[in-house]
Amino acid sequence: MPVETEVVELHGHIIDSLTLPKVLDQILKSDGSFEIEEMRIGNRREDTSYARIRVEAADQAVLTSILSTIKVQGAEMLHEKDAELAAVEQDGVFPEGFYVTTNLQTFVRLGGRWAPVQRPRMDCGIIVADDGTARTARFGHLKRGDNVVVGDAGVKVQPLDRPVAGRGVFEFMSSAVSAEKPKGALIAGIARAMKATREEGKKIVLVGGPAIVHTGGARHIVALIEKGYIDLLFAGNALAAHDIEAALVGTSLGVNIEEGTPSNEGHENHIRAINAVRRCGGIRQAVEQGLLTSGIMHACIKHDVDFVLAGSIRDDGPLPDVITDVIVAQETMAQKVADAGLALMIATGLHSIAVGNMLPAETRTVVVDIEASLVTKVADRGTHQAVGLVSDVEPFLNELLAYFRD
Amino acid sequence: MPVETEVVELHGHIIDSLTLPKVLDQILKSDGSFEIEEMRIGNRREDTSYARIRVEAADQAVLTSILSTIKVQGAEMLHEKDAELAAVEQDGVFPEGFYVTTNLQTFVRLGGRWAPVQRPRMDCGIIVADDGTARTARFGHLKRGDNVVVGDAGVKVQPLDRPVAGRGVFEFMSSAVSAEKPKGALIAGIARAMKATREEGKKIVLVGGPAIVHTGGARHIVALIEKGYIDLLFAGNALAAHDIEAALVGTSLGVNIEEGTPSNEGHENHIRAINAVRRCGGIRQAVEQGLLTSGIMHACIKHDVDFVLAGSIRDDGPLPDVITDVIVAQETMAQKVADAGLALMIATGLHSIAVGNMLPAETRTVVVDIEASLVTKVADRGTHQAVGLVSDVEPFLNELLAYFRD
Amino acid sequence: MPVETEVVELHGHIIDSLTLPKVLDQILKSDGSFEIEEMRIGNRREDTSYARIRVEAADQAVLTSILSTIKVQGAEMLHEKDAELAAVEQDGVFPEGFYVTTNLQTFVRLGGRWAPVQRPRMDCGIIVADDGTARTARFGHLKRGDNVVVGDAGVKVQPLDRPVAGRGVFEFMSSAVSAEKPKGALIAGIARAMKATREEGKKIVLVGGPAIVHTGGARHIVALIEKGYIDLLFAGNALAAHDIEAALVGTSLGVNIEEGTPSNEGHENHIRAINAVRRCGGIRQAVEQGLLTSGIMHACIKHDVDFVLAGSIRDDGPLPDVITDVIVAQETMAQKVADAGLALMIATGLHSIAVGNMLPAETRTVVVDIEASLVTKVADRGTHQAVGLVSDVEPFLNELLAYFRD
Amino acid sequence: MPVETEVVELHGHIIDSLTLPKVLDQILKSDGSFEIEEMRIGNRREDTSYARIRVEAADQAVLTSILSTIKVQGAEMLHEKDAELAAVEQDGVFPEGFYVTTNLQTFVRLGGRWAPVQRPRMDCGIIVADDGTARTARFGHLKRGDNVVVGDAGVKVQPLDRPVAGRGVFEFMSSAVSAEKPKGALIAGIARAMKATREEGKKIVLVGGPAIVHTGGARHIVALIEKGYIDLLFAGNALAAHDIEAALVGTSLGVNIEEGTPSNEGHENHIRAINAVRRCGGIRQAVEQGLLTSGIMHACIKHDVDFVLAGSIRDDGPLPDVITDVIVAQETMAQKVADAGLALMIATGLHSIAVGNMLPAETRTVVVDIEASLVTKVADRGTHQAVGLVSDVEPFLNELLAYFRD
Repeated sequence: MPVETEVVELHGHIIDSLTLPKVLDQILKSDGSFEIEEMRIGNRREDTSYARIRVEAADQAVLTSILSTIKVQGAEMLHEKDAELAAVEQDGVFPEGFYVTTNLQTFVRLGGRWAPVQRPRMDCGIIVADDGTARTARFGHLKRGDNVVVGDAGVKVQPLDRPVAGRGVFEFMSSAVSAEKPKGALIAGIARAMKATREEGKKIVLVGGPAIVHTGGARHIVALIEKGYIDLLFAGNALAAHDIEAALVGTSLGVNIEEGTPSNEGHENHIRAINAVRRCGGIRQAVEQGLLTSGIMHACIKHDVDFVLAGSIRDDGPLPDVITDVIVAQETMAQKVADAGLALMIATGLHSIAVGNMLPAETRTVVVDIEASLVTKVADRGTHQAVGLVSDVEPFLNELLAYFRD
Repeated sequence: MPVETEVVELHGHIIDSLTLPKVLDQILKSDGSFEIEEMRIGNRREDTSYARIRVEAADQAVLTSILSTIKVQGAEMLHEKDAELAAVEQDGVFPEGFYVTTNLQTFVRLGGRWAPVQRPRMDCGIIVADDGTARTARFGHLKRGDNVVVGDAGVKVQPLDRPVAGRGVFEFMSSAVSAEKPKGALIAGIARAMKATREEGKKIVLVGGPAIVHTGGARHIVALIEKGYIDLLFAGNALAAHDIEAALVGTSLGVNIEEGTPSNEGHENHIRAINAVRRCGGIRQAVEQGLLTSGIMHACIKHDVDFVLAGSIRDDGPLPDVITDVIVAQETMAQKVADAGLALMIATGLHSIAVGNMLPAETRTVVVDIEASLVTKVADRGTHQAVGLVSDVEPFLNELLAYFRD
Repeated sequence: MPVETEVVELHGHIIDSLTLPKVLDQILKSDGSFEIEEMRIGNRREDTSYARIRVEAADQAVLTSILSTIKVQGAEMLHEKDAELAAVEQDGVFPEGFYVTTNLQTFVRLGGRWAPVQRPRMDCGIIVADDGTARTARFGHLKRGDNVVVGDAGVKVQPLDRPVAGRGVFEFMSSAVSAEKPKGALIAGIARAMKATREEGKKIVLVGGPAIVHTGGARHIVALIEKGYIDLLFAGNALAAHDIEAALVGTSLGVNIEEGTPSNEGHENHIRAINAVRRCGGIRQAVEQGLLTSGIMHACIKHDVDFVLAGSIRDDGPLPDVITDVIVAQETMAQKVADAGLALMIATGLHSIAVGNMLPAETRTVVVDIEASLVTKVADRGTHQAVGLVSDVEPFLNELLAYFRD
Repeated sequence: MPVETEVVELHGHIIDSLTLPKVLDQILKSDGSFEIEEMRIGNRREDTSYARIRVEAADQAVLTSILSTIKVQGAEMLHEKDAELAAVEQDGVFPEGFYVTTNLQTFVRLGGRWAPVQRPRMDCGIIVADDGTARTARFGHLKRGDNVVVGDAGVKVQPLDRPVAGRGVFEFMSSAVSAEKPKGALIAGIARAMKATREEGKKIVLVGGPAIVHTGGARHIVALIEKGYIDLLFAGNALAAHDIEAALVGTSLGVNIEEGTPSNEGHENHIRAINAVRRCGGIRQAVEQGLLTSGIMHACIKHDVDFVLAGSIRDDGPLPDVITDVIVAQETMAQKVADAGLALMIATGLHSIAVGNMLPAETRTVVVDIEASLVTKVADRGTHQAVGLVSDVEPFLNELLAYFRD
């Protein structure tokens, strides 16, 4: 016989977003029970619904666990308390039991009022400043004395609504990732989303791997840059090094991109390309000194497209522009993507997962890779706004670009 | 303003199986609207729920389309009519507008009573015999004069319940297919399901591809047969031919299974193995004549394990036992698997999809393949009872077998 | 101390095709030894080379095994005997020790003269007719009394030369299959090879899977047919059924190809499409009766492109045009592809491997699939003339087609 | 008519290692021609061969290009000059035209004598010290004034011999990477190689990704450590964090490893695990303070197994032990692996490619991953000593471990 109870409320598109059944199922699976005290279901697609549910459990520990879980689905406690804070005692270490964020918009109850948490980002804690503002914080941000939210009392999240009508391909994503999707329709949808993002005045971020260059897709990226559809490039040393190798000697990892044939001693080419840029002092200098006159990196410099190159353990060189400390690179990137409207992630698991972890749930995300398992992993990060495409980089870009021809 | 309405009912675990929200969402997406006339939600895990919903649409065509769709989810019309029948006019051709089955248990309303449809199987029509019994039928079964259900009036399906508690790995399958699952736990769960099926007195069907032999897993299958855990084998010419090649000369496609090394002229080995069996007249004869003394096919003969070998366009030979007409092979197999309790599908997309299409939704299905895309395709066939494992055949079988050691 | 010896000769591009070192290595690995009696190495690329090698082994059995193996590389015995023949004693069964063919041009020594073996095809035997002509034969061709070559005395093969200069992408294939190749260059090379095949007056065969339709690539195939670049289509029931489903109702497996969205009850669409064609009596009749007015199959009928649809165990229906007996389908196809100049294999492992096994080694083969493992398996079938492309069907075809625009 | 000539020599197993034909083919492909002045071919397997070849080209540029290419195959110039040196003018930048190393043992001719280059490693330059010793150097090592080899005069490499007899699976690797290999035989071969490495007194390095933990394979690694078969672990933050998560709360990325079921709020677990270790100050401290009592990292501390954890852009946390600067991590690792006898690379493309780039060509390398494309990429790095296995981590380790049971 349950002795502990708590009343929670659910608001929004809780039926068609499956929020209500997931919450009820979660309660039952966790050995609780429930009574629906009130339910109002909207009967048009744009209507929201409402449910008030009494959650019951045999003891307080079970009840607390249930509440923690269903809060992530958007359940709000009817009689919510203020959030509990604890001070950081050691730089870079959270207090015991700190609240770990999702990528949803989150609110903290302080002095009886709900304060929005700035910079929603998953797997962070929440620092509450002296002025009562709240923001996400990662380990590296924590200073002794910071006040951090502990437990999940006084915290609520705003679940994602259904995708707004007409988002098209982003809705379609609900099914399993597969190569056997209608690619023309999906690529058209991605082009529309890029144009919509541009019209909303938001940033388009390209997160790209070296296969863009290896497959011969660099010229399509250059065209997108020239047309103003890329605002920020996030990549590693490899994309930039092979792009510059291709610009200087026509090969990518030693394979001639125009001819498709390996060249003699081609494996050395990217090492020599890196050396040439190091001699100049950096990519911008290589452009300014006339060494680098084509390719993606050249286009970034010429068209003022910001870029972040993050180091990785397998880098050759690296190029002088590469940020070799990964935590510095991560923070640099996190700041630049915070207001992105669309992230186009092409052929890089490493950087795509990194960026996926930084983005709020509502940012449109497009993931393109030839490996379905990678597309699944990156696209399946808790957003209604992701579209995953199992495709081949160069032919994909070739087809995408056709939508941006004048 | 909707002018056409119909009242439908939903019964069962409609909340946690997500049936109710899917039905409501479907109505809205199809430009209908609804009013919930009554709803009772069970508040323990084993309780069922009930909803009575008035569906509304602007015209009859939209209403009909909505009803067809939500009936597949298990919605029943409150005032259901008898099913409409039409006669087959041409052998092997269904009447216009015939009802196409799902893999769920289905009922047809005839003379005011609901008759169960025998042999639930997807993508069939329903023949109603003169004695009022109903059964699924494929194109090849149809004779001129047969009475077939048309439209979906008077048809209802019984949606799957949640998996019963403790099914373990079969529940877990709800998440995306991935290689990065806890394999020990999943393999233990598969072993438990095999033992449970045995205890229920139901058949275990092995659907297998030649990679079982190529990877060296044949001896594990032999052990499972010897221990009585395989009742029926469904495969193609390739599995049998390479198994016999391995039994006769120790290679599979010319690669020595014990040494891992290719042998001289090894590519000929399977051709010679097929020839040797053809000379005997068949696999059973090859065993009886003392030619074949080990391997999977030998074990099948010795332990009275039934097998069906279906021909494919890429077959060498084939072995005399192979059914070269695919429709005959399909029907042969369909009859044998109808009462299976568990299908273990290993490393064959072709045969696994074929069998998956034959099985009722409640049959336990285990899909093992090294390609995640194939596991997704096979496992994702509308059942709560499938577990998909992205794994390597021989090491998987090696680990599975440990649960069957005495 | 070796007591058995035999002298063999090698002719042709035995250095750059790696024939000579492979032969020498094979002798050593098989516990033989050798002495090079004479060697002349051409010192320009077009020059051929020559080697005469005395092979030595400890006993006759080892020597025989060595000779069998190196003959497949093109080694000819200096003092070759006539081929030994044995009569077939049982329909469909080869005599013990029959010679198993490769896909290379083969010659049989009869009465002191070398007769070419007609229809080179791998994994066959060789029947010598009463008029002294020799031809490959599969199990199903054998009649009691036929004379078949046994052993490998009196048999020699003509190894493939290096690809002729300028074959481009077909040369490049020597490296491992990878998605990270310069796709633009490869696709351009495939277009050139198709045009060259057309100019040589040879057939282009399309071997295709249903992903062509699912991904929205059917319209590109229609365009290739209209431009006269497809002479023969080899596929299964699925490609044709989904193509016709798309032509009739705009979906492929229920997914709208133009919109990218699943349709209500869409899973039924291909069943209804098959039924509609069955009612007409076949695909040609469906076109003639005005039912079928677009898509790949319609284009085949309209433009007199021959097609073979082979049944498989997972077929729904099937369409009336499908050959349900796989051995009949195989023989039908084998006859039609015998004189093909280029085989374009797209997104079907089953049919591609089947066709690959039928083709002589010198036929140009292009394999396109999103799964690298399948491309490797199909492309790696003993030919210098294969190019494998890990790519996405619709975008690949979209880019390929651009080379055929006027 | 060629006017420029140079005489080169080839020594060793130049026939069966295919060195000679590759060299001759390279000359012809590069528009040169040749004359074989002398050739002696060993006629037993252990005998070496010798060829002296006059290379001819139309001009000096072509000749130089040819010589550069064939030197990588092991061709030595008959009349070799001393290596040419140039001084570094800018820290971290090589002189124009610097010699780029392979992973083969390399020699530099200085004062008429051949000096071995220390620490063979690919994609480096060669610094010659004042005392006449030569060593590989990467960008970060270069100081103004260092003398670096430029051009390829006076440089020769020692090509790899065939694998010594009995290396077994390492020989077998010559064929394409495929999942359809005899796994039992390959795993037995890997176990033998690990034991042989141990007997030679050389290090075994484990390069591992988090899928080891996700799939439940951590306990097998712990057993290998306890038995003394791992000397050095190279991984990222993820492997260590999920290993510690599993040790502390039984989950990996929130999935219970024993049960196979996702846990409530499980996504937070690795964040809390990282926080707990940060509070302790590091992994060793977490063991010493009694927090960490099981798992891979615990076993490393307890059994004095050295480890290097390299940061990556997608890291959460990270753990205090992680080296966040990738170039520092790379150099740390390069020093530790220099004398490794065997590298066991499991389920991590990033770290495996990094380590592959550091190792000399003769180090035994075992690559295990469920993705064939990754196995191909890592295993195909110019060594005769690599074996690639497309397999599933936990079942692979389970089967491997059986060879180390007492």
